[in-house]
Amino acid sequence: MEIEFLRNIGQSLFKEISLLKPQFNRTVLGRGASGDTTFPIDKLAENRIIEAFEKEGVKINIISEEIGSKIMQDNYPSLIVDPIDGSKNAVSGIPFFSTSIAIADGGTLKSLKLGYIINLVNGDEFWAKKDEGAFFNGKRIKARDNTMPVIIAFEASTPYNAIKHILPVFKMANRVRCFGSTALDLAYLSSGSINVFVVPTPSRIFDFSAGILIAKESGAIITDIEGNSIDDLKVAFNTKTTLLVSANETLHKKTLDLIK
Amino acid sequence: MEIEFLRNIGQSLFKEISLLKPQFNRTVLGRGASGDTTFPIDKLAENRIIEAFEKEGVKINIISEEIGSKIMQDNYPSLIVDPIDGSKNAVSGIPFFSTSIAIADGGTLKSLKLGYIINLVNGDEFWAKKDEGAFFNGKRIKARDNTMPVIIAFEASTPYNAIKHILPVFKMANRVRCFGSTALDLAYLSSGSINVFVVPTPSRIFDFSAGILIAKESGAIITDIEGNSIDDLKVAFNTKTTLLVSANETLHKKTLDLIK
Repeated sequence: MEIEFLRNIGQSLFKEISLLKPQFNRTVLGRGASGDTTFPIDKLAENRIIEAFEKEGVKINIISEEIGSKIMQDNYPSLIVDPIDGSKNAVSGIPFFSTSIAIADGGTLKSLKLGYIINLVNGDEFWAKKDEGAFFNGKRIKARDNTMPVIIAFEASTPYNAIKHILPVFKMANRVRCFGSTALDLAYLSSGSINVFVVPTPSRIFDFSAGILIAKESGAIITDIEGNSIDDLKVAFNTKTTLLVSANETLHKKTLDLIK
Repeated sequence: MEIEFLRNIGQSLFKEISLLKPQFNRTVLGRGASGDTTFPIDKLAENRIIEAFEKEGVKINIISEEIGSKIMQDNYPSLIVDPIDGSKNAVSGIPFFSTSIAIADGGTLKSLKLGYIINLVNGDEFWAKKDEGAFFNGKRIKARDNTMPVIIAFEASTPYNAIKHILPVFKMANRVRCFGSTALDLAYLSSGSINVFVVPTPSRIFDFSAGILIAKESGAIITDIEGNSIDDLKVAFNTKTTLLVSANETLHKKTLDLIK
């Protein structure tokens, strides 16, 4: 399984969805395995991705936002997919959403070996292969060395409590962003656009898996918001964790201090 | 002066900037009249817009982020421009930025008569002509009638104090967004993607002028964050105000109550 295979899937989704104008179809198809609303764009993207893997005959277990878990055999690698990350943006007409695909060949997050994210609005692609670096549209990327200006992105599924919890962190922020796509937050942090990303409410495995591998390979520091490693979390549909991802150690430590 | 003239300017900027890849040029050219950093993309967009008006021989005073104020004659209409709204996103590689152009034919904000915003990433266009409605890519738009889910967007130039000030507002939020482009926040509120937009720190005339006309023509309610009308604010380079823009009266009132 190589990045080029994932890129082919992502690029053909990008083309198909550009033509679809997802914002004009807000029909709710029901709820996916994650409990979130499923829109036609979510289902379409998930079908395309799974079809591509099935056609290739890849032996793999699947963890995906809409279908949930499809475990074929315990020792197979895992495909971890968010078909549309930021689907609420997509269906409401806000052009900021992506597809996130990760592959892990073991039972915990430290076994993530491939990560791929495509911005479905402009086609920006981000990927990483374990121990081989992170890339943005083919160019090697690094998270920001510098500590100023501090651009903090966050996501919050329960806004009031989440923002209240991380309020002190904003003391060091020069700018704040909340885009509604965890995969893209992690991608743009990896390419140097953002230097701290914090999710005080539990983020789900399919939202962050590709992104944390890309972030790690770009040199970023990744823990939960208490500073604990997330490496030993299980590769499983129900795995959730808060996240603190920083472009460098200095900012990570400073953010942890402010949260405490 | 008609919308088609503004659309021609916007569309040719969109084409030129799509080719430029603004994220690869972070050179700081200095500071504009507003005090903000000027990047090459800001200057390029401002030059193109002003050139287009000059070529057309339009008799107009100019208020624009980089050059400041260029008053030809007191009784001329005013062109109010943010060449790149969200230029920090643009230069850092985050695909969310726009051009905002407004025309006023009197001395206060209530004399705004044309507003035009183009998303320079995907070409989405929003416009309004006073008393003639608001449009998104040629289709008439209305702000959201419904009060649920509450999607609150905010902008904050001094994040900690600003967020602290509006923290209670997030109690009613189902989702929060902070995109870094006031013009686009107002545009997507007008087209129904967002239903409350709040700027607790002073927003500048060139950031919001096109957006508030579009919002007003879409049926939205616009005041400062204390609930005061902003209609009588002067059309002048230094005009700044906090903003509270809601898709409907119910949400506006509820937000004001929470802020107090």
